[in-house]
Amino acid sequence: MIKVYFAGSIRGGRQDAALYGEMIAFLKARDCQVLTEHVGLESLQPEGEGTMTEEEIFARDMAWLAESELVVAECTTPSHGVGYELARARDMGKPVHIFYDLRRGRLSAMLAGDNQFILHPYTDRSELLEALGRLASKE
Amino acid sequence: MIKVYFAGSIRGGRQDAALYGEMIAFLKARDCQVLTEHVGLESLQPEGEGTMTEEEIFARDMAWLAESELVVAECTTPSHGVGYELARARDMGKPVHIFYDLRRGRLSAMLAGDNQFILHPYTDRSELLEALGRLASKE
Repeated sequence: MIKVYFAGSIRGGRQDAALYGEMIAFLKARDCQVLTEHVGLESLQPEGEGTMTEEEIFARDMAWLAESELVVAECTTPSHGVGYELARARDMGKPVHIFYDLRRGRLSAMLAGDNQFILHPYTDRSELLEALGRLASKE
Repeated sequence: MIKVYFAGSIRGGRQDAALYGEMIAFLKARDCQVLTEHVGLESLQPEGEGTMTEEEIFARDMAWLAESELVVAECTTPSHGVGYELARARDMGKPVHIFYDLRRGRLSAMLAGDNQFILHPYTDRSELLEALGRLASKE
């Protein structure tokens, strides 16, 4: 069972929370352990995790990132935290897979131009899930 | 003359372009050389820099980041690229100063919880410029 760090926007905006949840459920159904499962909860709001300090959230997420064997990010909604996590994952030598919806804007040049990242642009849900399925079955 | 890498959202959204421009002009008037001056141009749109490939933009920005002595970021508008740049700057050992408008949302826990970063929350323009002035005069 492979350990996955799933990265998606929280304080950057929760408009894609249901999509993150669907991707996480899809990975779990294919024998992946998703460490950051809370990212896909529609009940998690930008002001969520109110019982933890910023330092506690940061320390927990960095420990999960270090523990993970694979990083999967949905990067359609801009997020400082996701950009930060992907750069740290890269510098830890983790494989990083970035999904983004071509219909809803353009990926940052810092992510699109860094050849350490594996990009998965998609134009509809079936294309997204197909690419995610290939990734999960390969691992 | 200190070399500054100024980070602000481009593809994440240009709503703060004028603010970035004002901060960059302020730093330049205080003997800073701002390597990423284009970030403050209101004419630079999310689809801008169309004559360069993603890899060329990435390589140029990473060279500027490595060359810089100080990183100043305005983090009110979420941006994957800015989050990425700050993590890379941190891992390069650069001093990173993050400005954000408390009235317009909450900073990512990845930035707020990382004690390598120096945070400058502000609630109005004068508070922002005062903090930026202290920073520029200290360097």
